[in-house]
Amino acid sequence: MECLGCRIANGIEPNLNIVFENELITCVLDIAPFNEGHTLILPKKHYWDVDEMDPETAHAVMDASQKMSALLKGLYKPDGVRICADGGKFNDLKHYHMHVVPRYEGDGFTWSEPLHPDGAENRLSETGAKIRKALGEQ
Amino acid sequence: MECLGCRIANGIEPNLNIVFENELITCVLDIAPFNEGHTLILPKKHYWDVDEMDPETAHAVMDASQKMSALLKGLYKPDGVRICADGGKFNDLKHYHMHVVPRYEGDGFTWSEPLHPDGAENRLSETGAKIRKALGEQ
Repeated sequence: MECLGCRIANGIEPNLNIVFENELITCVLDIAPFNEGHTLILPKKHYWDVDEMDPETAHAVMDASQKMSALLKGLYKPDGVRICADGGKFNDLKHYHMHVVPRYEGDGFTWSEPLHPDGAENRLSETGAKIRKALGEQ
Repeated sequence: MECLGCRIANGIEPNLNIVFENELITCVLDIAPFNEGHTLILPKKHYWDVDEMDPETAHAVMDASQKMSALLKGLYKPDGVRICADGGKFNDLKHYHMHVVPRYEGDGFTWSEPLHPDGAENRLSETGAKIRKALGEQ
């Protein structure tokens, strides 16, 4: 598989922190999290833009965003959760991925650099374990 | 209806530029568009956060985002389309709404102020008509 997104979605990249998956999609922690728990949802089939996805996959992405939003709210008590996906030239991965990002007032949200980084990128395996555990308890 | 989002989604606010609707959702132009064609998708039933929506409504939102993304790409040839929804305290409307925003390189995307505003807020009725026409031709 030449596409990095395909390798991530299908679990064949090293050091992934997959927190949920089913036959259609994979939820994995962003390696550069804006805040703790920042998750990506990727289809296992290769699609670039949202409008290219088959309906079953698109619905599975939405289902997963609901699931992850509820989960992250319960876990981290954010002030809100942002759901976001960039298409076209703004999708650096060139494989569709929806961000699910816990947000806090004053976090200076941009996609490029948080104003208050707290080292969440250094706790990915712990965060992944915490989320997997919570998912298992639902 | 006390909720402004409910009034928008159910078409009972004045001066709406609704571009698509079905029994579950309404697509309406943002009154402060980031770029031309910036659309909001709202459920007709009242929900605040993404994870509160019933599955049929959530799927209808996703279906509409695919539809609008494809349409806006065809109409405006953006460099990409951003799909975004803020929850919790960051959802000022307190009624779920998904943004569908055509984007261009160098547009300085933020939710607060575009770097290159071009007066799209003054062409809402024309833009609405153009999009409705294109949807009718699909």
